[in-house]
Amino acid sequence: MSDPLVISIDAMGGDHGPSVVAPALARVVKAGLQARFLLHGQEAALRSAMERLPSIQPLCEIRHADRVIAPDEKPGQAMRRGRGASMWNAVESVRVGEAQACVSAGNTGALMAISKLALRMAAGMERPAIVASWPTLRGRTAVLDVGANIQCDAARLVEFAIMGAAFHHAVHGSVRPTVGLLNVGSEDEKGHEEVREANRMLRQLVLDLEYKGFVEGDDIAKGTVDVVVTDGFTGNVALKTGEGLARFVRAELRRTFTSGLLARLGALIAQAALRRLGERFDPSTINGGPFLGVNGIVVKSHGGADARGFATAIRLAADLAGSDFIAQIDRNLRQMTAAMREAADEVGERNKA
Amino acid sequence: MSDPLVISIDAMGGDHGPSVVAPALARVVKAGLQARFLLHGQEAALRSAMERLPSIQPLCEIRHADRVIAPDEKPGQAMRRGRGASMWNAVESVRVGEAQACVSAGNTGALMAISKLALRMAAGMERPAIVASWPTLRGRTAVLDVGANIQCDAARLVEFAIMGAAFHHAVHGSVRPTVGLLNVGSEDEKGHEEVREANRMLRQLVLDLEYKGFVEGDDIAKGTVDVVVTDGFTGNVALKTGEGLARFVRAELRRTFTSGLLARLGALIAQAALRRLGERFDPSTINGGPFLGVNGIVVKSHGGADARGFATAIRLAADLAGSDFIAQIDRNLRQMTAAMREAADEVGERNKA
Repeated sequence: MSDPLVISIDAMGGDHGPSVVAPALARVVKAGLQARFLLHGQEAALRSAMERLPSIQPLCEIRHADRVIAPDEKPGQAMRRGRGASMWNAVESVRVGEAQACVSAGNTGALMAISKLALRMAAGMERPAIVASWPTLRGRTAVLDVGANIQCDAARLVEFAIMGAAFHHAVHGSVRPTVGLLNVGSEDEKGHEEVREANRMLRQLVLDLEYKGFVEGDDIAKGTVDVVVTDGFTGNVALKTGEGLARFVRAELRRTFTSGLLARLGALIAQAALRRLGERFDPSTINGGPFLGVNGIVVKSHGGADARGFATAIRLAADLAGSDFIAQIDRNLRQMTAAMREAADEVGERNKA
Repeated sequence: MSDPLVISIDAMGGDHGPSVVAPALARVVKAGLQARFLLHGQEAALRSAMERLPSIQPLCEIRHADRVIAPDEKPGQAMRRGRGASMWNAVESVRVGEAQACVSAGNTGALMAISKLALRMAAGMERPAIVASWPTLRGRTAVLDVGANIQCDAARLVEFAIMGAAFHHAVHGSVRPTVGLLNVGSEDEKGHEEVREANRMLRQLVLDLEYKGFVEGDDIAKGTVDVVVTDGFTGNVALKTGEGLARFVRAELRRTFTSGLLARLGALIAQAALRRLGERFDPSTINGGPFLGVNGIVVKSHGGADARGFATAIRLAADLAGSDFIAQIDRNLRQMTAAMREAADEVGERNKA
């Protein structure tokens, strides 16, 4: 019998702290997640939030932490002075091996800095990448990086392909994920040097993924590939543009169905279908961004997430912890490094000759 | 009395040629546009397309052209061998002054190359920028560049701000357009060097626009500013991501309202409101991308546009031709160049001292 899954939670992070964490735990437990939880935060606040939730009490262990890292605290400051804060201790639980994954809705920069410091990066990686799962016509597409790495060379983009494929396999169950490189056209000569070089590398390398070449912005919602790879600047803009548009659509839908008596009546009659539509575009069903490239599973929840959103982030952490995600990334990064070294040696030999 | 507006049209471009151009002209004339049209293309095909549209016959002059530039023709080839083609002649009509604007749904690369060759670029510009008008919660936001300029230094981004503001003023009537620079956060230290430097320049320069600092992807749909400035790579990805998402939403709406008897009944009752919603997201109401930075007005229509979409592109050309758009861009580019020269001189003086 394998050890039960343990998830470490920074219960003080985000806009709502324990008042969202406790009902989120009740949700995932009710939905059948088999796990225990280490809750880091102020004991009194946590006890009070869990008071009316008897289902989760036997599964939770409270680890008191006095300090909370503020939303505006600089990453450097959090690293130097964060020791003992709820976020710090939540990551530390993963480092010492008493938990297999960690979730926090706190300060992103601080969480990233503390994760790097405590868990270290995978070989060759400098900064974690953040992945977002988009709902598409065909299922879910993983887009990365959506924020942390502003300028990326070709090797970094290949690393994103490796990590995105491991993520899609672990969370969405694809056996051999298809990967596309985001560009402004599909021909080999399109785009800047970094994407063209990454395109050449991905065509040559043998990895646990199926490389499909360049894709364009509209391929994200189409679900043309399982994983869309891009630099953190473009990915962040694309993600936020999409979020803005989704909010705009919701506002227009509301306006449409309150614009008159017939519209209201139509909405009333079609309400079940409209509710399903609303769920399809509900941001809480896509909450949770894991830090890829860190040697350990850390999932960042949106700071404003409600219990439903935070529950999605916990489930994501559990899916990753239950997979061979980290090992797959490690194996593929080694394959990539070996192939690049071989290519460099060949060039060296040729120059010597 | 001022001379009447003349618009030159490449009637053979795009997927549909004259069969879309003729009814598009009938639409704009019916809607009250005061203009005459030079139609470049195969005379027989044009006569036949106009046969049942008596309203436009007295306003159109057919200029026969045997050749059509193919959709897959390379820009260099089109420049060398395009002379006499309908697209070439349509642009040429603007060059010689017999038309004030030109519209084509043909090969984008060829149209850009021919426009640059015939009309020349504004001082200091290398390639035209393409602008897209997004529907937003507050009105329309101009986003540029959405395709032509992959890598952009800070000065190029400032030029986009100038051209985008002149465009918004001419087409959407804003008196002093607000401008934002697309980035991954709002603080001055966010993003790569090019956007940070452009941010500094836009804060210092005195131009016909109101600079508001950095904006993020979700500000596009919010309508936070009138003009969103970015490089052609990011802008193209953002535009196509938005288009893909809009198509996804339309597909989901269709699925929602055909998902059962009650949903169908609701849709029937609310049909007027749903039709208005559909129009709000109809791509034909946002068709037409002018080439900014060219010394003349050339509007590219989407190749697959229907008559309604092509009519939108014609109206856009007319709005630009009726404004002081080109003069405003020229005036502001001169202000920018003078300020940059002054700054360079100051540095020179300081180094001498």
